[in-house]
Amino acid sequence: MNFRIAVIPGDGIGPEIVTEAMKILDRVGAVYGHTFTYKKLLMGGASIDVHGVPLTEETLAEAKNSDSVLLGAVGGNVGNSRWYDGAPETRPEAGLLGIRKGLELFANIRPAWLYKELADACPLKKEIVGDGFDMVIMRELTGGLYFGERHTRVENGVRKATDTLVYDENEIRRIAVKAFEIAGKRSGKLISVDKANVLDSSRLWRAVVEETAKEYPDVAVSHMLVDNCAMQLVLSPGQFDVVLTENMFGDILSDEASEITGSIGMLPSASLGETKLGLYEPSHGSAPDIAGKDTANPIATILSAAMMLRYSFDLDEEADAVEAAVQKVLTEGFRTGDIYSEGCRRVGTREMGSLIADRI
Amino acid sequence: MNFRIAVIPGDGIGPEIVTEAMKILDRVGAVYGHTFTYKKLLMGGASIDVHGVPLTEETLAEAKNSDSVLLGAVGGNVGNSRWYDGAPETRPEAGLLGIRKGLELFANIRPAWLYKELADACPLKKEIVGDGFDMVIMRELTGGLYFGERHTRVENGVRKATDTLVYDENEIRRIAVKAFEIAGKRSGKLISVDKANVLDSSRLWRAVVEETAKEYPDVAVSHMLVDNCAMQLVLSPGQFDVVLTENMFGDILSDEASEITGSIGMLPSASLGETKLGLYEPSHGSAPDIAGKDTANPIATILSAAMMLRYSFDLDEEADAVEAAVQKVLTEGFRTGDIYSEGCRRVGTREMGSLIADRI
Ligand SMILES: CC(C)[C@H](C(=O)O)[C@@H](O)C(=O)O
Ligand SMILES: CC(C)[C@H](C(=O)O)[C@@H](O)C(=O)O
Repeated sequence: MNFRIAVIPGDGIGPEIVTEAMKILDRVGAVYGHTFTYKKLLMGGASIDVHGVPLTEETLAEAKNSDSVLLGAVGGNVGNSRWYDGAPETRPEAGLLGIRKGLELFANIRPAWLYKELADACPLKKEIVGDGFDMVIMRELTGGLYFGERHTRVENGVRKATDTLVYDENEIRRIAVKAFEIAGKRSGKLISVDKANVLDSSRLWRAVVEETAKEYPDVAVSHMLVDNCAMQLVLSPGQFDVVLTENMFGDILSDEASEITGSIGMLPSASLGETKLGLYEPSHGSAPDIAGKDTANPIATILSAAMMLRYSFDLDEEADAVEAAVQKVLTEGFRTGDIYSEGCRRVGTREMGSLIADRI
Repeated sequence: MNFRIAVIPGDGIGPEIVTEAMKILDRVGAVYGHTFTYKKLLMGGASIDVHGVPLTEETLAEAKNSDSVLLGAVGGNVGNSRWYDGAPETRPEAGLLGIRKGLELFANIRPAWLYKELADACPLKKEIVGDGFDMVIMRELTGGLYFGERHTRVENGVRKATDTLVYDENEIRRIAVKAFEIAGKRSGKLISVDKANVLDSSRLWRAVVEETAKEYPDVAVSHMLVDNCAMQLVLSPGQFDVVLTENMFGDILSDEASEITGSIGMLPSASLGETKLGLYEPSHGSAPDIAGKDTANPIATILSAAMMLRYSFDLDEEADAVEAAVQKVLTEGFRTGDIYSEGCRRVGTREMGSLIADRI
């Protein structure tokens, strides 16, 4: 089969880690008889440098026209980059928001699990972690405060800023359906997170999740308030399997969940819509400080490519092979600097990519 | 001196823990020659049972008319309490929101520190915790999503819910001023948390914090995105001293921060406005499951009373005495069930209160 992938290296370590993910895809192609053709696109700071804007219409059109999108990372150091001089719509991260909305990628899937080999890096105590944890945060990605109307006005000489949190039942239902489906394939346990004791949007969220639940009698659904969830993640991460939540809460909770694994450099993500076209990117950022040094960990991006094989191309066997190869290099003791511990073998970005490719 | 305190026992363990806090205040009165007179008021479920609403005009008027308010906790088990049958405005927690707004308590101060004696209960590893941590979360309490316009409407047959996040510069400045003042008295380090890469309200927040900073050249201010803050709290809590943030982010982050101490039953809070009148309550909830069993930990409420002595009555010496007495019972090894560990002496709610009172 032939798959056309839009590749957006982005900024910082983006180009390096994306190169390793392509190395892996090429290896998968060679072994399993597929062709992956890449179309490189600019986004974020890289696009600002060339086009003056973080995302052009052409880039969005090319992405739409591909079978799937692989993204490195966007953004720079806010304090010392020209990219941040202008209005928010002109900054690197606006490209990310623009492509999510433009491709209607409403479901952000962020797994957070504890790697047995890297358990020592987990900031939580052994007693808390127990046998480890393995959860998926499902974050709504194209609604809520991120995309509601906003404005800043001067009223009677006083500056006043407004953002709007809007959800309609269809936006809630489509992500709820995805969450129930994923929960059904996993442990059958779904926790929906909201702030229903305060927000109207949360009360509608909860009602629609309850309605959707009727179609999935095998999934046990419960509701948790967002403040409580922020506590429970630290107190007992093992209680979570699939967590469903709206855009802003998901932003906060998915980052908290990644961090409690202690190895955010290992965590992939997928952003999906109604079609097979998805956007796949590591959970970590662009780490401008270590860019170009061949030290970044490419594994999160490589595992994002594996998610692409699985969700966009239905190549489950190939995805399994990539994940197994990653597991193998870990078991063999290879580590990039961010996950290095005594007694392991330290390797750079490129070598890590090659080691994984060799094991497919 | 004579101080009139409005006492709101509330629901669940509220009455028990508030009783112990009054025991402490009475002891302080006897030792230092003050009189505290209490006016008991109903709020939350207790008020619903009697008046059908969680907060009456009379209760609010009585609270306004006092020198300060001491609160236990409000709320019950959402799943199995009649209190939750009606609309949100009729539920116990609405009483809390109503009194915050009614008394214009815009600054919620929630300290989160690690007790040396209870360090074993901390869910974070020793390497992460290092020499411990001691931070204060300053949460704006009467603006943002909590109090913006909201509605749920059916448009073209589709239910759609809207909440509004509004801040004007005066609302931001008054809490920023309080945060800079508190930071100045502590380490001189203030971190303001927002989502300025997405929200207009956050950009105004950041701008006003920067403007306010000019008046406090001795305080070093920096800005952190809310998603990053949720990670950093777990990764390196020791980096935080004073954290300033808006209402909803503060709700989430202050709960996360309390939880990483491992002893939320020990953490007080204060909600302040422009006058000396404040509302003081424990950081934990009403714990209906253990209500009336004489097992609840009264220390968070007792330390909230100490904050009242300090912030509302300017009785610093008396506040110090209460805090020292709490420290003493811990050092002597007395523990309620929630903080019990082997080798300590387990005591009930009332005994803990008496032990602390005896040491003042
Ligand atoms: C860069 C930013 C706008 C973005 C978000 O908040 O969605 C990022 O934090 C993420 O989670 O992908
Ligand atoms: C009960 C609820 C409305 C309240 C809030 O969200 O403010 C509580 O969580 C708190 O933090 O005091």
